[in-house]
Amino acid sequence: MPSAFDPPSGTRDFLAADVERREHVFGVLRSVFARYGFEPLQTPAFERVDVLLGKYGEESDKLVFKILRRGEHEASGEADLALRYDMTVPLARVVAAYGSQLPTPFKRYAIGSVWRADRPGKDRYREFTQCDLDTIGSESLLADAEALCAQHDAYAEAGLPEFTILLNSRRVLAGLLTAFGVPPDLGPGVLISLDKLDRLAPGEVVAELAERGLAAEQAGELVTTLTAEDATDRLRVALTKTDEGTAGLDQVDTLLSLVSGQIPPGRIAFTPRMVRGLSYYTGPIWEVVAPGIAGSIGSGGRYDHLMAQLGGPDVPGTGSSIGVERILPLLPSGAAPVRRLDVAVTVMRADLAAQSFAFAAAARSAGLRASVYLGSSGKLGRQLKWASDSGARWCLIYGAQESESNVVTVRDMSSGEQASVPVAELASYLADRR
Amino acid sequence: MPSAFDPPSGTRDFLAADVERREHVFGVLRSVFARYGFEPLQTPAFERVDVLLGKYGEESDKLVFKILRRGEHEASGEADLALRYDMTVPLARVVAAYGSQLPTPFKRYAIGSVWRADRPGKDRYREFTQCDLDTIGSESLLADAEALCAQHDAYAEAGLPEFTILLNSRRVLAGLLTAFGVPPDLGPGVLISLDKLDRLAPGEVVAELAERGLAAEQAGELVTTLTAEDATDRLRVALTKTDEGTAGLDQVDTLLSLVSGQIPPGRIAFTPRMVRGLSYYTGPIWEVVAPGIAGSIGSGGRYDHLMAQLGGPDVPGTGSSIGVERILPLLPSGAAPVRRLDVAVTVMRADLAAQSFAFAAAARSAGLRASVYLGSSGKLGRQLKWASDSGARWCLIYGAQESESNVVTVRDMSSGEQASVPVAELASYLADRR
Repeated sequence: MPSAFDPPSGTRDFLAADVERREHVFGVLRSVFARYGFEPLQTPAFERVDVLLGKYGEESDKLVFKILRRGEHEASGEADLALRYDMTVPLARVVAAYGSQLPTPFKRYAIGSVWRADRPGKDRYREFTQCDLDTIGSESLLADAEALCAQHDAYAEAGLPEFTILLNSRRVLAGLLTAFGVPPDLGPGVLISLDKLDRLAPGEVVAELAERGLAAEQAGELVTTLTAEDATDRLRVALTKTDEGTAGLDQVDTLLSLVSGQIPPGRIAFTPRMVRGLSYYTGPIWEVVAPGIAGSIGSGGRYDHLMAQLGGPDVPGTGSSIGVERILPLLPSGAAPVRRLDVAVTVMRADLAAQSFAFAAAARSAGLRASVYLGSSGKLGRQLKWASDSGARWCLIYGAQESESNVVTVRDMSSGEQASVPVAELASYLADRR
Repeated sequence: MPSAFDPPSGTRDFLAADVERREHVFGVLRSVFARYGFEPLQTPAFERVDVLLGKYGEESDKLVFKILRRGEHEASGEADLALRYDMTVPLARVVAAYGSQLPTPFKRYAIGSVWRADRPGKDRYREFTQCDLDTIGSESLLADAEALCAQHDAYAEAGLPEFTILLNSRRVLAGLLTAFGVPPDLGPGVLISLDKLDRLAPGEVVAELAERGLAAEQAGELVTTLTAEDATDRLRVALTKTDEGTAGLDQVDTLLSLVSGQIPPGRIAFTPRMVRGLSYYTGPIWEVVAPGIAGSIGSGGRYDHLMAQLGGPDVPGTGSSIGVERILPLLPSGAAPVRRLDVAVTVMRADLAAQSFAFAAAARSAGLRASVYLGSSGKLGRQLKWASDSGARWCLIYGAQESESNVVTVRDMSSGEQASVPVAELASYLADRR
């Protein structure tokens, strides 16, 4: 039941175990990206509304969280700022703003929150992390190949057990439409219908194509070819009959050859019917899927005029988007309980507190996580329970007896064994057993 | 001159060097906090307006960025959400929401953005990072001592060359008012005036005290005592004459003794006239100052009823706030230029691109940052300039000659020396020289 203390609908609080799990994965991604020479970029959480709105159409604009003007303007009910919807619009602004201060090409990655006023649901949040890498300012297929390899390495090193990169090119799709004689004005609609072959029966897609105005014979032929067992071979034959198709095939084959040393063959597959919804792609496109997961867990492609469409300069670009929120639940859990402390130090009497405090400091100087007991109970049992709850490996006990003999009792919390360690030797005793 | 591509007023874009510098410092802080057994907490960027507003008074409410309701409600001009103003209100909500799921005491740290619609100025931003550590659920002075030590270690390990922690207690201040016979109703105002002794002449403060209704003689005596060279000694004598003063002195002395093994004597000083503006503190209070820096670079204290005031349960708390945005400019710069790449690989001819791409992969598998040239020039000079701009240690050259002899030319970018390395030995050659 939702309570007054829940985070806002569609958002999450991350307690320690979640934070550590997420940050670990983000750290892996950062190190992969750095290895490819991508550099980090951080932009503000909000942008001016004019920068943000009207970039992806009306439906997207409705999902933007707008920020009320302040002071005397608050009563106007108008917004002047809005929370970022993705990482790409801010990238276009940065490319426009910093121009020659940026390296050429500009290879950047961004890992951060974005906000969308979507209807919250299972695995659909209003605040979630996006992770993008992009190369701006290069027309080279090598840039696409780098993005593909970096994306592959990101999933592999994060520990994702199974995934496949579906590779295609907008030029293959253009060739496909030409090869099957689809009238140019029907092209975009036909692609949208073909994209549904994953989830609709072939007959349903044929019907949809006919509805869009495609001749029944053409629609049938297209769908039969695309769903045939040897679809890729048959399409290759058809595509080589058109210039655009030949160019598209060449792009795909060059990419497959470039990445062949780094992406195992089963992990990437030419998938000529894969369309990718977004219209801004101009060259290679790809989508990452995992068994048992509906939809994609990542995507990417070349978008040679998107920066200009988003208000930046007209420079070519290509990049990958890692669906971190989608892969996090798929990763092996690591299973280890959160260990807040290595060393828990009891405080048996107020007049011995200063020594206990100093023992915790000694443990920290030995590189261990340590804390004294901060509660009010003088009972050893209570304090041992706290030590155990903290996941501590050792509990240090320092009471009247220990004080008299100038020793510390070091209790191993898993075995229950106890050792008497002279106060002066405590730091080295702990350091030796780290 | 502001351009249409600047980030919104009061916010910043962080390019690679800035991100790396900031993240390095945040990483140091996280590791210090973990060593003390504080655990990370991340809450959403926004909260419901009812959670956020009315917590710190009208002036603060004016600084809150409010988010417009969406869909059919947008036209109402009303806000239902607001960007977080600090890390403490979300903490109170989390303490209320998760109760017994949290460890007791709950020691958490938070490093993240907060947003305030302040007038932007030099070093004053509308989006900035706050870094707080707090212990909720302990009345023990040991918890205050931990917060002090963790804060000290944070500055020291971040590399801040000079700083002093000014320590006081609200109980010392209460005793001070009693000892000098200040009528209880004048107390809060008198403290506000005394807090100005840093920046106003003693006479001005005396005048202000008189204006507040304090007898001229008392005002003079108070200010004379507080500004005397032996002020602390004279105050100790005065304070011991009152119960509250004696209790306050005892708090301060216990804390000084607890932290004495970890905070060098010059780094912490009992400062009886230090008030701290915020009224919610109930026990020890502290402020961190650095030479040449106006105001404080951090603060902290005990606030035993703040959680309840903020809408959470009535549990005691204490904590420190590290002014990360203030200390970042004070830290040694590290000076090293951003090295995006270790290995830059030329692409001399399109038909040799696949080999170049594979060399970059080999370098990465040796743990190096590597990329191929992504531009369109076939000229070695242009490609060497790119390698140099990327900060690469080595440039790999692979042209017609190298291809024929099955070698790679490895150019040391600082010395200009070149070596011919057989293709098969490249990875181990680079790994040996890492």
